[in-house]
Amino acid sequence: MSQLNILQPPQTKGHVSVVKLPDHWFIACTSEELKRKPLAATVQGVPLVLFRERGGRVAALLDRCPHRNVPLSVGKVRQGRLECAYHGWQFDSAGTCRTVPGLCGDAEASARNCPSYATRELDGFVWVYSTADKQPDKEPFRFPFVDDSRYTTVRRSLSMQCTMHAAVENALDVPHTGFLHGGLFRTSKKSNEITVKIKRGPDRVEAEYEGEPAPRGLAGRVLAPGGGMVQHWDRFILPCVAQVEYQLGSRYHVMVSSAFTPVTDFETRMHAAVCIRLPVSGRLIKPVMMPVALRIFQQDSQILKLQTALIRRFGGEQFVHTEIDVLGPHIWHLLRQAERGVRGDTEGSILERRMMT
Amino acid sequence: MSQLNILQPPQTKGHVSVVKLPDHWFIACTSEELKRKPLAATVQGVPLVLFRERGGRVAALLDRCPHRNVPLSVGKVRQGRLECAYHGWQFDSAGTCRTVPGLCGDAEASARNCPSYATRELDGFVWVYSTADKQPDKEPFRFPFVDDSRYTTVRRSLSMQCTMHAAVENALDVPHTGFLHGGLFRTSKKSNEITVKIKRGPDRVEAEYEGEPAPRGLAGRVLAPGGGMVQHWDRFILPCVAQVEYQLGSRYHVMVSSAFTPVTDFETRMHAAVCIRLPVSGRLIKPVMMPVALRIFQQDSQILKLQTALIRRFGGEQFVHTEIDVLGPHIWHLLRQAERGVRGDTEGSILERRMMT
Amino acid sequence: MSQLNILQPPQTKGHVSVVKLPDHWFIACTSEELKRKPLAATVQGVPLVLFRERGGRVAALLDRCPHRNVPLSVGKVRQGRLECAYHGWQFDSAGTCRTVPGLCGDAEASARNCPSYATRELDGFVWVYSTADKQPDKEPFRFPFVDDSRYTTVRRSLSMQCTMHAAVENALDVPHTGFLHGGLFRTSKKSNEITVKIKRGPDRVEAEYEGEPAPRGLAGRVLAPGGGMVQHWDRFILPCVAQVEYQLGSRYHVMVSSAFTPVTDFETRMHAAVCIRLPVSGRLIKPVMMPVALRIFQQDSQILKLQTALIRRFGGEQFVHTEIDVLGPHIWHLLRQAERGVRGDTEGSILERRMMT
Repeated sequence: MSQLNILQPPQTKGHVSVVKLPDHWFIACTSEELKRKPLAATVQGVPLVLFRERGGRVAALLDRCPHRNVPLSVGKVRQGRLECAYHGWQFDSAGTCRTVPGLCGDAEASARNCPSYATRELDGFVWVYSTADKQPDKEPFRFPFVDDSRYTTVRRSLSMQCTMHAAVENALDVPHTGFLHGGLFRTSKKSNEITVKIKRGPDRVEAEYEGEPAPRGLAGRVLAPGGGMVQHWDRFILPCVAQVEYQLGSRYHVMVSSAFTPVTDFETRMHAAVCIRLPVSGRLIKPVMMPVALRIFQQDSQILKLQTALIRRFGGEQFVHTEIDVLGPHIWHLLRQAERGVRGDTEGSILERRMMT
Repeated sequence: MSQLNILQPPQTKGHVSVVKLPDHWFIACTSEELKRKPLAATVQGVPLVLFRERGGRVAALLDRCPHRNVPLSVGKVRQGRLECAYHGWQFDSAGTCRTVPGLCGDAEASARNCPSYATRELDGFVWVYSTADKQPDKEPFRFPFVDDSRYTTVRRSLSMQCTMHAAVENALDVPHTGFLHGGLFRTSKKSNEITVKIKRGPDRVEAEYEGEPAPRGLAGRVLAPGGGMVQHWDRFILPCVAQVEYQLGSRYHVMVSSAFTPVTDFETRMHAAVCIRLPVSGRLIKPVMMPVALRIFQQDSQILKLQTALIRRFGGEQFVHTEIDVLGPHIWHLLRQAERGVRGDTEGSILERRMMT
Repeated sequence: MSQLNILQPPQTKGHVSVVKLPDHWFIACTSEELKRKPLAATVQGVPLVLFRERGGRVAALLDRCPHRNVPLSVGKVRQGRLECAYHGWQFDSAGTCRTVPGLCGDAEASARNCPSYATRELDGFVWVYSTADKQPDKEPFRFPFVDDSRYTTVRRSLSMQCTMHAAVENALDVPHTGFLHGGLFRTSKKSNEITVKIKRGPDRVEAEYEGEPAPRGLAGRVLAPGGGMVQHWDRFILPCVAQVEYQLGSRYHVMVSSAFTPVTDFETRMHAAVCIRLPVSGRLIKPVMMPVALRIFQQDSQILKLQTALIRRFGGEQFVHTEIDVLGPHIWHLLRQAERGVRGDTEGSILERRMMT
């Protein structure tokens, strides 16, 4: 029936920047979201059910009863086990079927088990390991400074309609700020040539901006009211973390860490913690920062949604990269290596780029 | 463009319990629903138009004008013929084109005819035969006791978002009642081991429950207020009928007959008649029974809808059967034989199972 | 996963009357619709962005920024150039990238250019050429009489949910008027046999109705209050124009020209100009004609929408043609020749048909 859709846009490569990463940790939900009831969450397209065992430890199973394929997340937690709403089958935290009501004989049989996923609860987030029935060989990313009393921390969890790669590139992309967030973040009036150093590690890539003036615009006036030169780093850490760090002398320090969860191809959930150390009281930061940060996020979210709709309409991406897309292609390279299970091959290498700001 | 959907749940077998049965009768609508205007109805994915000829006999045609593919169901019945709304072509009950307005010469030509389907109007239902332009070699199922004055009859027609097989299995499934309908139907507190006899016939399968106590819970108190032992049969009759029968001594008798119409893969319409004979006046039954029955139906309908959504999300079913799924696999076997045109091969065979209730 | 959709209607040929025509002009929007902001428009499935250069000339580009695939139509026009909302890249009317903010060095590079489409602004409409980056070898259709002061002109632009072919055939189809528009347009009471002459040219087909009485019904009483014989022509002109012309003596003349834009397979936009010359003041025409014309359009639009839904449901069209479908098959033949780049092979040929009206 191919004739039913012949009026298509021009052909593209049919490529979309989506990976499926085995053996990695992603945030499934916040600690707050997981209460007494089981909770449905999707990670990399896989429907999961999260629940708390006796004592509160988090368990994660594939969200499908092996019996009649009803979602277990509409069931109940009974005495630390997850009970299916349809026929009352019960599963423990390892996914083992422990009860089949009505059955004469043993409930346990391997075909009746659910795949289970390792979990960690850290820094207020519930992480799940992306490979079922496997012990992790590494631990999740830790959010720096969230427990440091010298810092004011603001957390936000938000959903975006785009690939994880597009969300991460956007979070670490400098050139769009003057246009999409023109006025809020920086302006394009004056122009300085600066140097960007790009460092690759086995699980990360970092851009260091040298000689950059303090951010201008409204955000700049809040972050660095006295102006001056700042140190600025943008980092991507496998599999899902974007970090933006600003240092202004020894008294101002801003660390924005965002962990992105690929929910489906074009749905990404961001869990961000903004940690700020200022010489003034942190109580002033939230009421001033939050409206600006939310406006920036809305603008990013809207443009990424439009990008996604167009990519879907054309059946794929067709991006052109320039010298000043300093991190996007590196991030994609790291994600592809991780998907193939290959260790980063460019540890310690440093590139330099020039950019006008 | 396979990359556009790479974040999928784990692979399943890609199987869904759907059949397409030629040469069988299904209910297209109730007698009440078909008035003077033509009526659109879908059976096994086939769009049909039903209309009443002069004298009231029901005709059923493929709901597509052969000329410009407009649905005939938006047309009119004129003098017992169905007239297309677009160019006024008229069709008789056999689907023969009898008028082409504007055409000089004969309207009749075989390419201008519509496929037609045999119909029967019985027990308040309009049945259609699933193979076009063919005389049926058997007659539709008759609803027992609906015209018997000793019985109180309640009818209901309802739509469910699931396969016909899932709806039928659910209607005849004992183990789910204690959980999905916990409190309403039976409770899981006490536990008795009973025997289930499964009898296969060429067009049916029946489960007979022996030694079963009267149903507990609210429904039990209504159906069998005195408690005691009941006889209980669950039956599937090809192609689409589920029957639940309870006998308590000679004075209480309950017969629930439901004919299921596979509308599309995941849409099933149920036409049920509940016939009850009690030693007390039947007038008391409806106000007490109806709220309970509707609540049970809502719970079934909701869980089946969730099951369907999950099956579609995974791209297929992956069921595990146990000893106490006494009828589901037999029903599927009968449906598959009927789809292939094979006659049941296990006539008269009897299996026994044990079950805790 | 084919089993997920096995309950389908009977198989059809899987054919849909959709073509994709290179090297032809289609209307993208009206002159009025394109103001200072860029405007998104889709032609034959291709997303375009239209904008006015300095001086007002219209430019049309593929509506996708080559950099990160954001729609350019959400950007701004700055000094006659189109600026992307995400990173501020600027494109001129030829699609050449002229600015990449932040980049040290030349912005221009062929990979950074956008495909561009030739445009013409004529008779109040913006036409675009369907092949990118190519100089047209012919000019768009001109709407006759729209600037003639002896004529009263009414314009309307409307969207229809159907193929362009179905919309054009409907616009030029006589036999449906008595049924779909029964009462408004003509009635089926009296019946005359008339002759239709069909003339094929290389880029057009015309039906001339001889001996036709003036249209009856409400529309007829408005168009030809004195009755009498009319001359009537229905024309299709490649790639997208349907024309209906009525002449009643030398004093009454009606010319309805409609240009159809295939937006997607099943979405067609119609831009119509009705030009009427009467012996009475034209001021009377609009208030009387408009409600009738809109009612006729609503009826056509509704039946075509139902036709489309059914064609999609069956997975294709399965039309039967008769002698009195005088233009539809010729129009399809012309469209298919144009799609293949073949010149019409039946120039000047004349066919005759008989029809009852």
